[in-house]
Amino acid sequence: MTATEPRRTEPVVALRFEAGTLWALDQTLLPFQELELRLRSAGEVAEAIRRLAIRGAPLIGVAAGYGVALELARDPTPGTLERACRLLVDARPTAVNLSASVTRVRAAALEVGTEGIAAAALAEARAIHSDEQDASAAIATHGAELLAAAGAVLTHCNTGALAAPGRGTALAVVAELWERRRLRQVLATESRPLLQGSRLTTYELSRLGIPHRLIVDSAAAGLIAGGSVDAVIVGCDRVAANGDVANKVGTYGLALAAEAAGIPFVVAGPTSTIDLACPTGAEIEIEQRDPEEVRRALGQPLTLPDTSCLNPAFDVTPAALVTALVTERGSARPVGAESISRLKRI
Amino acid sequence: MTATEPRRTEPVVALRFEAGTLWALDQTLLPFQELELRLRSAGEVAEAIRRLAIRGAPLIGVAAGYGVALELARDPTPGTLERACRLLVDARPTAVNLSASVTRVRAAALEVGTEGIAAAALAEARAIHSDEQDASAAIATHGAELLAAAGAVLTHCNTGALAAPGRGTALAVVAELWERRRLRQVLATESRPLLQGSRLTTYELSRLGIPHRLIVDSAAAGLIAGGSVDAVIVGCDRVAANGDVANKVGTYGLALAAEAAGIPFVVAGPTSTIDLACPTGAEIEIEQRDPEEVRRALGQPLTLPDTSCLNPAFDVTPAALVTALVTERGSARPVGAESISRLKRI
Repeated sequence: MTATEPRRTEPVVALRFEAGTLWALDQTLLPFQELELRLRSAGEVAEAIRRLAIRGAPLIGVAAGYGVALELARDPTPGTLERACRLLVDARPTAVNLSASVTRVRAAALEVGTEGIAAAALAEARAIHSDEQDASAAIATHGAELLAAAGAVLTHCNTGALAAPGRGTALAVVAELWERRRLRQVLATESRPLLQGSRLTTYELSRLGIPHRLIVDSAAAGLIAGGSVDAVIVGCDRVAANGDVANKVGTYGLALAAEAAGIPFVVAGPTSTIDLACPTGAEIEIEQRDPEEVRRALGQPLTLPDTSCLNPAFDVTPAALVTALVTERGSARPVGAESISRLKRI
Repeated sequence: MTATEPRRTEPVVALRFEAGTLWALDQTLLPFQELELRLRSAGEVAEAIRRLAIRGAPLIGVAAGYGVALELARDPTPGTLERACRLLVDARPTAVNLSASVTRVRAAALEVGTEGIAAAALAEARAIHSDEQDASAAIATHGAELLAAAGAVLTHCNTGALAAPGRGTALAVVAELWERRRLRQVLATESRPLLQGSRLTTYELSRLGIPHRLIVDSAAAGLIAGGSVDAVIVGCDRVAANGDVANKVGTYGLALAAEAAGIPFVVAGPTSTIDLACPTGAEIEIEQRDPEEVRRALGQPLTLPDTSCLNPAFDVTPAALVTALVTERGSARPVGAESISRLKRI
């Protein structure tokens, strides 16, 4: 390496809270249209989360926190607090960040009297937002140290600024490697059915100026076997106490391919994604989504309307296949009950 | 099992030669439209193969044979024979059946004088067609014996009557298991980028009355790990002398998942797909197709038009991951240089 100055990149802003309103880039329209949604109630936030206008485990946690605060600004009562919390927690089942964030805002709100409830909730939502931004920056640093030798990496789904505040999780590591002038190229999977790779990851990588090639999901294993990349790095939606990882469907197959090729398979995410109450991956509820997502691609029918489909949104990668779990508090390596619990205790 | 009568199913007819014309179902329009193309020259057949209106390694071999015969019917001369053969062989690079079939029809045509050349070519094309139908039936029988215990199987891409004359290859085994009342359900992968699974396999399975669920490609590994299927069965585009298998991109990942789950990974294809001139999978040319196929799904843009893509059409599965190769002459098991050469010599 030459002693060149590090590059500077500017991440996209997926969420911002301004003047009593939560503004969220509608991720269902990207990359074709950049439209910010104006969200002013818990119901609007829950709906945006449900239809994936806001997505990514850390980002939906932050959005849900603001959702509680927005609702309390309209009606600052304990009854409204409970209703808003339930509505938001029920929006999606797999990511633990959503319920953790709502629990945190609820506790802060319950600590104060009715007159201060809305302000307390908003302050806590802002604190969660800020914590996640700090976590993203720390994940980027730890991950880039771990993968300092990787010139080409493969990533799955979207794990950038559109998935987590700051620069994201796995894609924050990618951006950091690029800024440190380590990285030459990224292979990005399209991530059917909702195409977060083709739509969101390529959009973010383009904005960051990072060279990349898009591939269909099933091309990944063969390209990994053929030596196209030096590492695979993905995010996570929930990490069990034993280190098993629930993440976007297809992650497990990438882990198998990385193991067969003898390259690192790295998972990046904030410790808020670790769920010690969940002993192993077998206990993680896998969200089954609308079969219509499989029947179509961005509205285009791909099969006959009566075709029966299965549409699991996530799969579970056993801890044994994960080279390292990178969090804002450092890395678990090897990944197992002991290293996971150490991270969570710090 | 009860001693119930076997079921009877009727496969779709992908190709038929009648009254001097080759009729081919346009597979690019299925399942939304059932349209037969009327092909009357080698150029029309080559174009149909190139744009995947006719596809599947054995089926393009048969179509190419008729293509030579059609051209000789228009102009029964040795010069035309050579031009037609070159045109058809150049239509697609990976499947060995195409050149093998053209070589066979050319040899038959060269054995007779100019007055008999067209008739000899047509007779040979019909013989190839009939041979492939017999091969399909035999593959179905051998495969169903091998997988007699499989109640649920996963298959990739399309390997039915739309890919090979008769009932196909891997899907012929599936149909045979269904007729024998062994099978409960099939999981079919959509097979991006060209969606042969969503468009063609579901179409065939529906017509055969076989219960099935369509999944995105990257859902396969997790479902295999979760015990959803008892076996994986796929076709092949070229088998090397050592048993390495080139097949639709994504096949290698399915083989890894089957191995990890301890279930059989079975490859089905006629011995015409075995290429003894190709020592290992490393020597198989992998067709790189138009990046536009990754950027779109059935015409619908999935990403911005300037996104850089990689689009390998096939990958290579090492012989060690293949439980058995089922051919019309029986099965190679374990799969290796010795068992492969024995099948080819029979």
